[in-house]
Amino acid sequence: MGTRDHAGLLIMGSDTCHELLLTTPIGRVAFVKDGEVNVLPVNYRWHKESVVFRSAVGAKLDVASMHQRVAFEIDGWDADAATGWSVLVSGVAEEVESEDELSELNRLGLRPWAGPKNRNRWVRIVPETISGRTIV
Amino acid sequence: MGTRDHAGLLIMGSDTCHELLLTTPIGRVAFVKDGEVNVLPVNYRWHKESVVFRSAVGAKLDVASMHQRVAFEIDGWDADAATGWSVLVSGVAEEVESEDELSELNRLGLRPWAGPKNRNRWVRIVPETISGRTIV
Repeated sequence: MGTRDHAGLLIMGSDTCHELLLTTPIGRVAFVKDGEVNVLPVNYRWHKESVVFRSAVGAKLDVASMHQRVAFEIDGWDADAATGWSVLVSGVAEEVESEDELSELNRLGLRPWAGPKNRNRWVRIVPETISGRTIV
Repeated sequence: MGTRDHAGLLIMGSDTCHELLLTTPIGRVAFVKDGEVNVLPVNYRWHKESVVFRSAVGAKLDVASMHQRVAFEIDGWDADAATGWSVLVSGVAEEVESEDELSELNRLGLRPWAGPKNRNRWVRIVPETISGRTIV
């Protein structure tokens, strides 16, 4: 049966969470800025046990440069079947600044939503916790 | 051409945001609990200018009973076409407690992800701001 949380959702194992992080193209970064909770979708990659994405100068990059705690969420669902899952990564956001790492990230072929214009910075979220829940 | 934000994303008008809130089945509630940003997907409805969803006893309901500020996000995307949109609602979460309102909400036919078991409470997010961005 697996383990369930208080709401009856089945808790997913670490392997399943990692597999979903590897294969899902879009996630959402949630962070607090000026006392407000923000949620922004990003094209991302799961790279070397971290979430990485491109960013323009702006709120996401500000949060990264302040090494703030953020959450990153991915999910999938089938409305007709009423099934779904979500994975939540909690960790600290930081801008990637090493030239070697930037070269490596630029070779990932990750295309940001708004086109590469202005999106030449990279943010990494180093996970502290990864949790997933599913309905079966 | 419409108005663009700093990253080149096209800002959507209020009518488009409302239409997307009416027609999207799943959204994500983001809130701060014990200093951590949480993001949880929910089946929701856009009802009388508010986001409403069912909740079991737990983190989402705690946040609602404390009238906390939360964010609610919906998005849609086409990975092949590299197009997407997102709508962000900021507001205060509250539990719905009036019997009349609960009767009305229970008639909406909203099916929560984890089945109706334990999900007999309703949370409403009253929007203070609604914003949307799209790539075209």
